Amino acid sequence: MLLEAVYHRPKLNWCYAYDGRTIHLRIRTKRDDVTAVSAMTGDKYMWDQSLTYVPMYKLASDEMFDYWECEVVPPYRRLKYGFLLESGKEKYWMTEYDFMKQQPENPDRLFEYPFINPADVFETPAWVKDAVFYQIFPERFANGDPSIDPEGVLPWGGKPERDNFFGGDLQGVIDHIDHLTKLGVNAIYFTPIFAATTNHKYDTEDYMRVDPQFGDIETLKKLVKICHDRGIRVVLDAVFNHSGRTFAPFVDLQKNKEKSRYKDWFYIRKYPITVEDGIPSYDTFAFEPLMPKLNTANPEVKEYLLKAAAYWIQEADIDGWRLDVANEVDHEFWREFRRVVKGIKPDAYILGEIWHESSPWLMGDQFDAVMNYPFTNAVLDFFVDGVGDASHFANAIGKQFSRYPRQANEVTFNLLDSHDTARLLTRCDENKDKMKLAAQFQFTYTGTPCIYYGDEIGMTGSNDPDCRKCMEWDEDKQDQELFSFYQELIALRLKYSALRTGNLKFLSAEAGSNRLVYTREDEESKIIIFMNNDSKPRTLEVDVEESRWEDIRTGETVSAANGALNLKLPAYGCRMLKAK
Amino acid sequence: MLLEAVYHRPKLNWCYAYDGRTIHLRIRTKRDDVTAVSAMTGDKYMWDQSLTYVPMYKLASDEMFDYWECEVVPPYRRLKYGFLLESGKEKYWMTEYDFMKQQPENPDRLFEYPFINPADVFETPAWVKDAVFYQIFPERFANGDPSIDPEGVLPWGGKPERDNFFGGDLQGVIDHIDHLTKLGVNAIYFTPIFAATTNHKYDTEDYMRVDPQFGDIETLKKLVKICHDRGIRVVLDAVFNHSGRTFAPFVDLQKNKEKSRYKDWFYIRKYPITVEDGIPSYDTFAFEPLMPKLNTANPEVKEYLLKAAAYWIQEADIDGWRLDVANEVDHEFWREFRRVVKGIKPDAYILGEIWHESSPWLMGDQFDAVMNYPFTNAVLDFFVDGVGDASHFANAIGKQFSRYPRQANEVTFNLLDSHDTARLLTRCDENKDKMKLAAQFQFTYTGTPCIYYGDEIGMTGSNDPDCRKCMEWDEDKQDQELFSFYQELIALRLKYSALRTGNLKFLSAEAGSNRLVYTREDEESKIIIFMNNDSKPRTLEVDVEESRWEDIRTGETVSAANGALNLKLPAYGCRMLKAK
Repeated sequence: MLLEAVYHRPKLNWCYAYDGRTIHLRIRTKRDDVTAVSAMTGDKYMWDQSLTYVPMYKLASDEMFDYWECEVVPPYRRLKYGFLLESGKEKYWMTEYDFMKQQPENPDRLFEYPFINPADVFETPAWVKDAVFYQIFPERFANGDPSIDPEGVLPWGGKPERDNFFGGDLQGVIDHIDHLTKLGVNAIYFTPIFAATTNHKYDTEDYMRVDPQFGDIETLKKLVKICHDRGIRVVLDAVFNHSGRTFAPFVDLQKNKEKSRYKDWFYIRKYPITVEDGIPSYDTFAFEPLMPKLNTANPEVKEYLLKAAAYWIQEADIDGWRLDVANEVDHEFWREFRRVVKGIKPDAYILGEIWHESSPWLMGDQFDAVMNYPFTNAVLDFFVDGVGDASHFANAIGKQFSRYPRQANEVTFNLLDSHDTARLLTRCDENKDKMKLAAQFQFTYTGTPCIYYGDEIGMTGSNDPDCRKCMEWDEDKQDQELFSFYQELIALRLKYSALRTGNLKFLSAEAGSNRLVYTREDEESKIIIFMNNDSKPRTLEVDVEESRWEDIRTGETVSAANGALNLKLPAYGCRMLKAK
Repeated sequence: MLLEAVYHRPKLNWCYAYDGRTIHLRIRTKRDDVTAVSAMTGDKYMWDQSLTYVPMYKLASDEMFDYWECEVVPPYRRLKYGFLLESGKEKYWMTEYDFMKQQPENPDRLFEYPFINPADVFETPAWVKDAVFYQIFPERFANGDPSIDPEGVLPWGGKPERDNFFGGDLQGVIDHIDHLTKLGVNAIYFTPIFAATTNHKYDTEDYMRVDPQFGDIETLKKLVKICHDRGIRVVLDAVFNHSGRTFAPFVDLQKNKEKSRYKDWFYIRKYPITVEDGIPSYDTFAFEPLMPKLNTANPEVKEYLLKAAAYWIQEADIDGWRLDVANEVDHEFWREFRRVVKGIKPDAYILGEIWHESSPWLMGDQFDAVMNYPFTNAVLDFFVDGVGDASHFANAIGKQFSRYPRQANEVTFNLLDSHDTARLLTRCDENKDKMKLAAQFQFTYTGTPCIYYGDEIGMTGSNDPDCRKCMEWDEDKQDQELFSFYQELIALRLKYSALRTGNLKFLSAEAGSNRLVYTREDEESKIIIFMNNDSKPRTLEVDVEESRWEDIRTGETVSAANGALNLKLPAYGCRMLKAK
């Protein structure tokens, strides 16, 4: 047994309360090295009477490791535990101190989850598990009110540039709400809608005001109301890491320098406020002079931003916040943000933009979820760029999945493109079949999928600004077949809870292969998904226990022969069968 | 290279801000497997211009792993990083995603410390680095005011039982403050002094009142003032996990049951409040009916306890809190506790009683330190019980040291015994030489050492209640030689900063041996410590760079011969030499 590969450490993803009664334990071992793992558990204050071994199952695997999990419900909410690792006749007990060849005599040196305090339990909003998001970049979705167009607005459908405007607004979204209903999505994520100078509005001028080019608070309220009436939740973008250069406190600071009463609202390295060789004399997002970093530890700044966070929930009844550049803001701020937001709307969704490992934000005191870029990268690598084989893909997914508590995974935000990246269809060299295959993985995986506006009707676009084209409303120019595909995919996801929160198991993900078979299974159903990520038709075969299956799209019955399912799939084909 | 052994994960002990400018990075590799490690660092917004490799040094080792560390000061407080691992010609770059044979082309998939926000920097009180603590169990230290003796008080020096009283009080501490000054300690940790029914006072009746058997607020204020005048800090014990059964809200609850306005102050599993088969019908500390667990998430409870936490700092000017059963209280409570306490006294010491892995409490938002039981266990195993050899001991110390950020290690509370354990001398079968050797390790290690009252004059006592004997004030019965030993040890520790915060390196800690040689080194001095943990005299030899050394106790010059120091030590002997 390779003991150096074995890893466990209390808290984080390794030991956490899933709810007020249940603790999840996880441990990592070298891949295919250990045949059985169980958790040795009990109450330290009555150890001998309570000692119980709980078998663990393989939750996920990556290239180097297996990740095991079990669930424990300790009667007095306290848990002392170790692990028993077995490989054939070889046995090791893992304590917090050592690996031992015998069972530890007492619990003194074991691991501990001292008490499930309700205040620490990481609760994520249930509705997000069932959500399908649609991302809207408001300036480019639809122009519903030309009377508020910015000066110099260009005709709808022109070439997007970093600094041009096409007049998209909130009324435009209201006008086209039927499009979303028809598609079947039940949540919208809007990039920023508050007063700012740019077309993307990430340089906030006034956090308390809807950008006048987009409408006003009344338009927003109306929009949210209409969405809610249709069962659609609304999440807005909070840009709290930095303001815009026209934000009143920063304007005052530029004018009054050291004497400004706002000098502690920002991080000024030296006066005067200037930019030398591309480096601002103040902290900013990246080195962008337009975006001075806010001092979110300053009580005044905190009060102002938290007021804004509360205001739009209270006034406009929005359902959550996506947090821009969330990783560069202090944890203390986010803790207070969570208290404020959840205090008003307990099931508000708090979604951080973090591109890297996000455990420190996903322990229950800060975010519900992050934008799942490790997922994005894994899917793009395998389905789009052909980097790595099926085994590599399954490993990347396993690694990502093992990293966070289950309640975070269930509401993680799974995107394949956005206003920050090239569009999925363009990334696929406009090969629609490839795009569809990637989307089918996205929609049959744990976490909430998001469609970037226009993807569903075949819009293309390379990196920013090209990915921010005006939405195509001419039905003749919309890809209706693609729209139907997404419609059906959404409906399937919403129909089968197994596709949303069921356990995932890869049945086939071989080295050197680009074919994938996996199951999603919960108490209600078991669905097997076959994917041929190849430019040629391929036959896929896997052993299954059940003999009769039904294609969840066509209703066609498919039977296993000799304990195996054998399916021929076209290039980039996918089939989903449900055990009968 | 054994890649399965390599571990790094952002935050915790692996990547943290040491101060407002400095980030510490650590990585784990298989022991003696990797010859060089460097951190590949830069600013992600100007990667190519900022890319720098920072060499890492071996911070510590344990049985299976080496732990490497380096310090980085990123100019814009943002850090993107990976690691380069080298073993001979073999090279691997570790990213957040993978191990690669080539340098990653861009920083996209590297690890990240997004921004050093001052609000998140984990600051611990500087004075604790230089503190030597003395633990007092007030009922047994000295009776200074017989007028407040409890009923049925027994003559000083009787046999301690779980429920008897000897009349120790705060005036007694005042009366004997010269003893502490003479010994040289500069901090006192008192077990609880607030109104309670037991002799240990862990069953609080009133958090706002000094126990009348100990004195009153005026006695406490006087005591703290006298201590402060002598440069002695005072830390009290906060028992916030549970109250006593006579705490007014619990009394009310017992009387009024479901109708009590205090019913949400505790966790009642069922009414009436009772104890069946030893199991209370309400949550308690362990299964102790006397100690009902407080619902620290209840805003009223929180307000009451935080008021108490603030009150004794504001009124009596105490210097910190030791937190009883700290691990069973919710993290949210402790975060608010830290804000309140540090808001009043920024350098107050917050010390949690946690016996197991404590990372989740040592990230800057909760405690400064914990009671370092892994240290206690390592020292007792090796020096007292003879369990494991020098190698095993060095490994246990290395493991413990690698686990927390440096600022936590610097103020960790290193105890060898307490009111909860047998006394050190008794654990050593009254072998004073063994006791001294253990103490010499304690006083030459990172973290603040604590002497349990009476250890310094040779008091004995097995487990509770025997370890809680009355302090021996008859000088003829005090071990004056031992007192002088501790006096000198304290003075040495306070004289040489290297013994407090210098880097530690084991020069000799071999398997099968019970002899130990290590250095503590900082900018001011380098001290080498030889320990013979054997019942027979032994000769110890290690290679050294410096040729001339001075015994820091005797002033004697000791010279290296042929690049080596060769010392003959008596049984359980120890020598400390300073490089000249």
